[in-house]
Amino acid sequence: MALIVQKYGGTSVGTPERIKVVAERIKRYVDKGDQVVVVVSAMSGETNRLLTLSQALSSQPDPREIDVLLSTGEQVTIALLALALQDLKVDARSYLGSQVKILTDDAHGKARIKAIDGQAILSDLNGGKVAVVAGFQGVDHAGNITTLGRGGSDTTAVALAAALSADECQIYTDVDGVYTTDPRVVDCARRLERITFEEMLEMASLGSKVLQIRAVEFAGKYQVPLRVLSSFEEGPGTLISIDDDTDMEAPLVAGIAFNRDEARVVIRGVPDTPGVAYKVLGPVSEANIEVDVIVQNVAADGSTDLTYTVHRNELERAQEITERIAQELGAREVAVDGSICKVSLVGVGMRSHAGIASQMFKALADVGINIDLITTSEIKISVVIEEKYMELAVRALHTAFGLDQTDQQAS
Amino acid sequence: MALIVQKYGGTSVGTPERIKVVAERIKRYVDKGDQVVVVVSAMSGETNRLLTLSQALSSQPDPREIDVLLSTGEQVTIALLALALQDLKVDARSYLGSQVKILTDDAHGKARIKAIDGQAILSDLNGGKVAVVAGFQGVDHAGNITTLGRGGSDTTAVALAAALSADECQIYTDVDGVYTTDPRVVDCARRLERITFEEMLEMASLGSKVLQIRAVEFAGKYQVPLRVLSSFEEGPGTLISIDDDTDMEAPLVAGIAFNRDEARVVIRGVPDTPGVAYKVLGPVSEANIEVDVIVQNVAADGSTDLTYTVHRNELERAQEITERIAQELGAREVAVDGSICKVSLVGVGMRSHAGIASQMFKALADVGINIDLITTSEIKISVVIEEKYMELAVRALHTAFGLDQTDQQAS
Repeated sequence: MALIVQKYGGTSVGTPERIKVVAERIKRYVDKGDQVVVVVSAMSGETNRLLTLSQALSSQPDPREIDVLLSTGEQVTIALLALALQDLKVDARSYLGSQVKILTDDAHGKARIKAIDGQAILSDLNGGKVAVVAGFQGVDHAGNITTLGRGGSDTTAVALAAALSADECQIYTDVDGVYTTDPRVVDCARRLERITFEEMLEMASLGSKVLQIRAVEFAGKYQVPLRVLSSFEEGPGTLISIDDDTDMEAPLVAGIAFNRDEARVVIRGVPDTPGVAYKVLGPVSEANIEVDVIVQNVAADGSTDLTYTVHRNELERAQEITERIAQELGAREVAVDGSICKVSLVGVGMRSHAGIASQMFKALADVGINIDLITTSEIKISVVIEEKYMELAVRALHTAFGLDQTDQQAS
Repeated sequence: MALIVQKYGGTSVGTPERIKVVAERIKRYVDKGDQVVVVVSAMSGETNRLLTLSQALSSQPDPREIDVLLSTGEQVTIALLALALQDLKVDARSYLGSQVKILTDDAHGKARIKAIDGQAILSDLNGGKVAVVAGFQGVDHAGNITTLGRGGSDTTAVALAAALSADECQIYTDVDGVYTTDPRVVDCARRLERITFEEMLEMASLGSKVLQIRAVEFAGKYQVPLRVLSSFEEGPGTLISIDDDTDMEAPLVAGIAFNRDEARVVIRGVPDTPGVAYKVLGPVSEANIEVDVIVQNVAADGSTDLTYTVHRNELERAQEITERIAQELGAREVAVDGSICKVSLVGVGMRSHAGIASQMFKALADVGINIDLITTSEIKISVVIEEKYMELAVRALHTAFGLDQTDQQAS
């Protein structure tokens, strides 16, 4: 017997028929003696329907009222799923965020969870009930409804799992797990049995959008074992958990992430004085432009070159700001490139193994790809290359680091 | 400056455009210094949409979960109306039933209001805000969402008006007031300026479905002046209030109500012993068949004839039950008629004026209508007649009692 928190996203509960399928899966867990807490999102399409209504009435909507509006989406789903479970003779009870209660701060639309009272749910579980909890929503100290922002249902599930000391938090999605890389780019991408929280964070932030990064951080912080599974087919999915040092067979590289929508700005020949990076990047971030890679090199003449990447949509604004600063600082030139991409190796094994970086560079050189920028962290090596080589680079690295699926593994 | 509670039904808030119109009307009241509390229903069609979803999942749905589901309808409307008001620079704040809070018993789907805490709303009103309250919903002592049943939003509005000691409770509908009779039957039916709670109760229960009977009862009990107005056009509507004895000009007859869907069951020649009415009607009401008119006459031979009317849909069941009982009691025969109707004069003036009944019977005789059954109460005289004469009867009585609209009155 285990205490399991399951989370189903909007696609998984998008129609009454799919809600029935979800109820049947929950029943299987209940029948084998597990205690189950279910967290659900709004039915797919519902949030957009509600936002369209609000947009017809207000151009600058009050975030408090938007939260009142949007939180109805999950409220509908919990009621329907509870009904579907009861129809299968599974005793179930729905919970709003305020009924749990999930106490948050009052930052409407992006509230943070401050505390969860698990007593009512635990008492229901001990009474043999399934608790069906509305994801994405909470309540502030004054009783106002709050929402946690995009992907908030994942966060609700992980936070509940932590508060209830659940044995596992299962996130049901439309993919059957976390892959070594995007299967749409590499045919023989392989589903991972396990991945660490840190690796998952790097994979998620680099574009493998299976899980919300905030939920992974939360799970890592509270060491809640997290499993990603498919709503539509059976299978073990991928377990995301702490780094298990005793596992001698752990692979060096867990996966390959990539990001296609990057653009690069280089400011060359900046007089190398203290604070130059801040002088260049401060105004960029003040303009709410998110900067990804930052690389600085010292040139021989005492000046420096500073390169950064941004989302391609932001390139024009970033270029304008940087050209203004270049003039102020007396820099030599600003150059931009809107057709680059970033490819990263991710793996906790890198921590203790030298030589992975050079192995990566060799694999790219072997297929004739020129590396533009390199950055490294403890568990990640990223290269920026020309966008047109992205698929080639990912495939070459996937093979070079032994990630390709073999028939045996595929079984 | 007055404190006004306004209630808008589902049609009045059925689209974003209509919600804007409602917001504009509220703004006019605010601009002239009134304090306004608004109670809203779900957007028209929404409740049925949600019920259809639940029916796909459960044949015998848990009323608790249905309340969780249906209460989202009003929640959407309060958020949208608050946004629309804010867009007009009217400071507004939405309230769920649980946020007010509107405490009810735990009879899901037909909960009764036990107490209303008006403090938060009064403090908002004093701060210059409009309070937008979800109708139809409350919360029980354990924090479960409850709903008040069909037409519950009217009840919410009246109960709030009573709790806040409002100067007036305005119910906005798709008609511009209460009429002397149904204008679809009598062209020259006239809108009433005023009507008493008691008259309104008789009019409503007899088929003039402008207001939910429960809300009128509630308003009468707490003497909350209630006004019925149109959402779609300007006008004073009809004020429903206590009987003002000082008004010497009060008409004898306020209006004429009618009910088309009646059917009649007669059980003849029942031995007239104590408890015979109960023996006949007990089993009918146990079968959840609502009985309307009941008339008993003693025949010369010591037996009795008992007649009752039911909704036409229930006739077959009522007949079966009554034939079984007739056999048990040794009654002579059971006869039914599925094509009758009931026409009623309603007016508090009847209390103190004799002769209205005979005036009514004469008016019907003058147009050749035979009266089948007669029942009277303090402020109502009802006759049951053949259905085909209904329109004729209503028009004849409307004219005979001086209710027809004249050009002068119509101005």
